[in-house]
Amino acid sequence: MTDLTLALDVMGGDNGPSVTVPAALQALKFNSQLSLILVGNQAEIDPFLVEIDSAIRARIQIVHTTEVITMGDRPIHAIRSRKQSSMRLALELVKDGKAQACVSAGNTGALMALAKILLKTLPGVDRPALVSCLPAVTGKPVYLLDLGANVSCDSETLFQFAVMGSVLCEAVHKRAKPKIALLNVGIEDVKGNDQVQQAAQYLIDTEQVNYTGFIEGDEIFTGNVDVIVCDGFVGNITLKTSEGIAKLLVHQLKRGLTQGLFVRMLSKLLAPRIQSVLSKMNPDHYNGASLIGLRGIVVKSHGNADEAAYLQAINLAATEAKRRLPEMIKDRLETILLDINN
Amino acid sequence: MTDLTLALDVMGGDNGPSVTVPAALQALKFNSQLSLILVGNQAEIDPFLVEIDSAIRARIQIVHTTEVITMGDRPIHAIRSRKQSSMRLALELVKDGKAQACVSAGNTGALMALAKILLKTLPGVDRPALVSCLPAVTGKPVYLLDLGANVSCDSETLFQFAVMGSVLCEAVHKRAKPKIALLNVGIEDVKGNDQVQQAAQYLIDTEQVNYTGFIEGDEIFTGNVDVIVCDGFVGNITLKTSEGIAKLLVHQLKRGLTQGLFVRMLSKLLAPRIQSVLSKMNPDHYNGASLIGLRGIVVKSHGNADEAAYLQAINLAATEAKRRLPEMIKDRLETILLDINN
Repeated sequence: MTDLTLALDVMGGDNGPSVTVPAALQALKFNSQLSLILVGNQAEIDPFLVEIDSAIRARIQIVHTTEVITMGDRPIHAIRSRKQSSMRLALELVKDGKAQACVSAGNTGALMALAKILLKTLPGVDRPALVSCLPAVTGKPVYLLDLGANVSCDSETLFQFAVMGSVLCEAVHKRAKPKIALLNVGIEDVKGNDQVQQAAQYLIDTEQVNYTGFIEGDEIFTGNVDVIVCDGFVGNITLKTSEGIAKLLVHQLKRGLTQGLFVRMLSKLLAPRIQSVLSKMNPDHYNGASLIGLRGIVVKSHGNADEAAYLQAINLAATEAKRRLPEMIKDRLETILLDINN
Repeated sequence: MTDLTLALDVMGGDNGPSVTVPAALQALKFNSQLSLILVGNQAEIDPFLVEIDSAIRARIQIVHTTEVITMGDRPIHAIRSRKQSSMRLALELVKDGKAQACVSAGNTGALMALAKILLKTLPGVDRPALVSCLPAVTGKPVYLLDLGANVSCDSETLFQFAVMGSVLCEAVHKRAKPKIALLNVGIEDVKGNDQVQQAAQYLIDTEQVNYTGFIEGDEIFTGNVDVIVCDGFVGNITLKTSEGIAKLLVHQLKRGLTQGLFVRMLSKLLAPRIQSVLSKMNPDHYNGASLIGLRGIVVKSHGNADEAAYLQAINLAATEAKRRLPEMIKDRLETILLDINN
């Protein structure tokens, strides 16, 4: 095998191996240093591996299992009963050092619960958070966390997410003193629920984080801050709402630009440019959310990711593995959190 | 005065009388049956009333006050200390039957608290909800509530919002058996926090509401359901996120379509069509959220509304007053809620 080995839960997601395996083959084709362990039902994987180049086949291992965690499984069920699930086996490969990172498009709650139990959190972190990038007017992506790993968060959890987001942004993306904001229903001090109010107080009291205050939903995409923190319920709905409205706008625009012969002709000429703008806004372009705060690397893909989107998630996992993300976060985080706790 | 009289809190919002008074004059110009009571600082209102037509001036009353509720005021402060605020006086005009509806672009929390105390809720309703429309692929707007009047909601409150949304949609907008959904982080039964889980159970047990299940953020704009229910924290962020991403897309599109001479020339020719699509997506087009569940009509405008957007809010209040919205809701709601409670 090669320097870099990733474990893929190929059964996870709405489309299973029909999307994940072709994406895996693309990843291997583009990155000759990469090896992949495909975890799932061999009978469903094999049809996608016929007629592939032998050099690529040599960088694939298959860990066969027929057990799968479904989108409707409760996390507790996933932990207690599905000991041979593709998701669990993929995470165990990371735990045992056989893979440097794991990718799954499966049930988020189950992935979060299993990852926490198998990989453990970093010192000072109670709960891992799901973080991803959103596009911004400045062209510099904005980090949003948590995206759905924790549907309810108390103020201390929000505070820890802010610290982790800050460290991620600083350590991995080389942004000095990243600006951190809490997502809220207003920017005034008195706005919001008890959780954000108290989290704001913790952040104001912490010199280690460049906290800039509350931010409202319409300011997310301005790029005025680097990291935005909220609970997983709000984060998930924020992310998906952005996708929904972007799709609506594209739909309206397409309809508006195909009515009438003259407009249709002009639109055809402009199509490549419009396409290029829209593809940058395509949520698939940003597919792959990292579960941070763990002692191993776990990347969550959208459940409905297509091949190109799933490839993005694999590439993200490869990048984080190469940069040894957990170690980088651990060093900075330990100092900050232990300092605060003392 | 005329048949229809509305009270405007002209001091509310980011821009105060410089936006609200010109919008009021527009409303009076377009609707000869309308009279307006402008509540606010006469010295700030008067400059906008010079040189106006005397027939229009005759349909304007001014209630002078210098006290204002700011965006940073806590609701409790607004209630206890600001007895002469423009917001409170405007609401009192509705309470006293001197106006049929009130419009304010001021502090949402204060408006909600004052409206509840002064106007009282309808029988069976614990808390009023803020509801507005969002655009959808089908062209038929979707109702979203609560939009920020209640930052925390228990399951019973969410249930009441679902019932009120259903009645609003059915009674006022003539949609038969409107489809009601709860906004959640997944569509599977096990997903979400305790509040949405329990609210779902209440709705499943209620034959009076056509409950269709959970809905995710990316499905809001498909138009597959008529009414979407969530707490005010989530609703506010959902609404503002939609605005933010729409602005980002417009920005990217404009930038993409002005680079290069040929593209710029083509874009100019297409500009009117693109403009027409985008203006339909402009959140201002949907400005004006109704505070429902009260014994009077209160419309909340965006704080940063411009003249056209504030005019939308005035028009919405006029429409609701003409249709006698609270009476319509009360009749249907009383039957449903009292039936459920028994």
